[in-house]
Amino acid sequence: MDRVLTNVNMVTLAGEAGYQVIGDAMIGIQDGMIMYAGHKEHFDCHGHPEVIDCQGALVTPGLIDCHTHLVFAGNRAEEFEQRLNGVPYEQIAKAGGGILSTVRATREASEDTLFKLACERLQGLKNEGVTTVEIKSGYGLTLEDELKMLRVARRIGEMPDINVSTTLLAAHALPPEYAGDPDSYIQFICDEIIPAAAQEHLADAVDVFCEGIGFSTSQCQQVFQAAQKHGLAIKGHTEQLSNLGGSAMAARMGALSVDHIEHLDNEGVAALAACGTVATLLPGAFYFLRESQMPPLDQLRQLNVPLAISTDFNPGTSPIASIRTMMNMACTLFRLTPEECLRGVTVNAAKALGLEEQQGKICAGMKANLAIWNLSHPAELSYRLGVPDLKSRIVNGELFNQPLFHQTGTGQ
Amino acid sequence: MDRVLTNVNMVTLAGEAGYQVIGDAMIGIQDGMIMYAGHKEHFDCHGHPEVIDCQGALVTPGLIDCHTHLVFAGNRAEEFEQRLNGVPYEQIAKAGGGILSTVRATREASEDTLFKLACERLQGLKNEGVTTVEIKSGYGLTLEDELKMLRVARRIGEMPDINVSTTLLAAHALPPEYAGDPDSYIQFICDEIIPAAAQEHLADAVDVFCEGIGFSTSQCQQVFQAAQKHGLAIKGHTEQLSNLGGSAMAARMGALSVDHIEHLDNEGVAALAACGTVATLLPGAFYFLRESQMPPLDQLRQLNVPLAISTDFNPGTSPIASIRTMMNMACTLFRLTPEECLRGVTVNAAKALGLEEQQGKICAGMKANLAIWNLSHPAELSYRLGVPDLKSRIVNGELFNQPLFHQTGTGQ
Ligand SMILES: [Zn+2]
Ligand SMILES: [Zn+2]
Repeated sequence: MDRVLTNVNMVTLAGEAGYQVIGDAMIGIQDGMIMYAGHKEHFDCHGHPEVIDCQGALVTPGLIDCHTHLVFAGNRAEEFEQRLNGVPYEQIAKAGGGILSTVRATREASEDTLFKLACERLQGLKNEGVTTVEIKSGYGLTLEDELKMLRVARRIGEMPDINVSTTLLAAHALPPEYAGDPDSYIQFICDEIIPAAAQEHLADAVDVFCEGIGFSTSQCQQVFQAAQKHGLAIKGHTEQLSNLGGSAMAARMGALSVDHIEHLDNEGVAALAACGTVATLLPGAFYFLRESQMPPLDQLRQLNVPLAISTDFNPGTSPIASIRTMMNMACTLFRLTPEECLRGVTVNAAKALGLEEQQGKICAGMKANLAIWNLSHPAELSYRLGVPDLKSRIVNGELFNQPLFHQTGTGQ
Repeated sequence: MDRVLTNVNMVTLAGEAGYQVIGDAMIGIQDGMIMYAGHKEHFDCHGHPEVIDCQGALVTPGLIDCHTHLVFAGNRAEEFEQRLNGVPYEQIAKAGGGILSTVRATREASEDTLFKLACERLQGLKNEGVTTVEIKSGYGLTLEDELKMLRVARRIGEMPDINVSTTLLAAHALPPEYAGDPDSYIQFICDEIIPAAAQEHLADAVDVFCEGIGFSTSQCQQVFQAAQKHGLAIKGHTEQLSNLGGSAMAARMGALSVDHIEHLDNEGVAALAACGTVATLLPGAFYFLRESQMPPLDQLRQLNVPLAISTDFNPGTSPIASIRTMMNMACTLFRLTPEECLRGVTVNAAKALGLEEQQGKICAGMKANLAIWNLSHPAELSYRLGVPDLKSRIVNGELFNQPLFHQTGTGQ
């Protein structure tokens, strides 16, 4: 083994239900993979080069944020302030605000600038134990600028302490160049952007915004067909503000996940269950937009639809780079249990990225992505916020310590 | 000067309204005090031993969290989980849960343990620019244990990088020893606990929980009278769940602040305005308890009642050690403006602690408590969450850098 963790209070999530805690456990890591995870009596740690005594610390799978818009330029804080000062959205949009201000700034920004800005935001997620993050394009809306965003996302994934899944979201908003002609933009996405992203291996999946203020269900279906023609996975922003049937359409086409889904109906839930599609809850946007329509959780639970939870980090509707805030909001606003929340940012988030064979649990054969916490019970992850509870992360077998944690309690 | 900050984008909050930003400013610090804060042309920085180039960073007054219950032992995460799994509160309370479980654990804990636990939580606040924190007792509920909690709070205040105001909250809950006899407990507080806390200089103020499930308005008034007899300031948890008139009573007696106040009526608002009492909003408890009754913000604004905002960090109703989450929740849930939020955690929070002559603004004569941010606009403090935006804090003139910030963007 390259590295052995001893004295671990291990939350494996390896079974279908329950935290699956193993106390006084050991984890053996080699070549970035978990080779052993279990009781210490079955493992001899002699002769291994690096033994880390976790001193009883809680160890969970590394957290996975499966839906973010981390890469963008511009700043919508003043727009936020204007709205709270009573300026109507129409006036802000007329003055160049709203999503198109982010598009404009993102188009103008260099890859280096976008990389630097995204790294700052990502640090918030890393500080809370995230070891894998999904990053979408969607603020370029030209061939060149969508590919630029995806290149930045890929470059973030080259850092040793984070795994990145990339998603092409050209069908996020209608660019001003195509005003009044969404069908032509959809055609352009299918004929030009998707093929180019696939050719350069820049996208792991293709996403759409299926909504009255986005694109129609049939336009989204076209995008999905083009994606699948090029071997890319599909997923959707669906049923956030209204019920257009986008979730069911996406599920039937084999989507990895459908995200938001506050307005999902029973037929949609049944489609997710039948097709094995993950339902990704985004409580940050629900909170930030002061929504009142709850996702259909009882129905989703009844049919055993896997629930993921994510930040949806973005400048317009969820500027919150905190996966634990999302876990707490899922408990507080959606009445999920802490166990559902932890599964939502590990096992089920991995499934939402098509990575469930490699990530999201602690067991032999998984990639060694772990979070080591100064906590004693996994429910604390959803319960308390703000305290720097993370001690270290292990990403693909490498150890990354949290400097701030190691400062606590010293009087500094 | 001991220390000079140059190239500062300074948010002084020195006037009655507006952020009062001065670009390209300088701040001169000597003996822990701000000696100069203004345009660079009026200040010669030659000959001063330490010049810190802030490189255009936003500098605000150090943030003040004016209402916390940071000192306690025990863990209510499992109770949180039980409730989300449908266990009724009565059953949890019967099994020894609820506030009395915190009381039991706090009584059993040593000062060293309480100190260590509080320091971990406090680190979350420090990471977001807090330089002054109020800490209440209220989980001891015996003479000895209330004083123990206050001693821990005082010890926290001896650390060089934080200022602490202490508050005696013996009238937080009825201890089991006095079950059925709240008047005797109130008498004990007035005759024994308050005099002892005053004698040992352990409390800066005395607080009460005025509520149907707490103490009556007349019981709280007795406590306030005893506090004032011993020269201590007063403040109250009032009008959180019902309207008992505690806020008006407290204001008329000269309370520094009344806190929660969702159920405050017009007469109460008028009393605050007439008496110069601060209204402290605690959006974390409002969020965590899923309350729907909004504080009477229009009336408070009309009568120019100063609004403070605080975490109310506590294990039962607001386990959120994040002042910026409170600012964001005050915007999102209460529709405050970002400027009201920043004033709520600086100028007005200082006033809620009786410290408005020393803290909460940047101007000559104030203590040098500052927060230095990797941000360009003060509205961002309320707008985005999770990103480690704090570069450094200055506490009583001394510089404390944030290790995590200095790590961002380096690929680590
Ligand atoms: Zn999204
Ligand atoms: Zn409180």
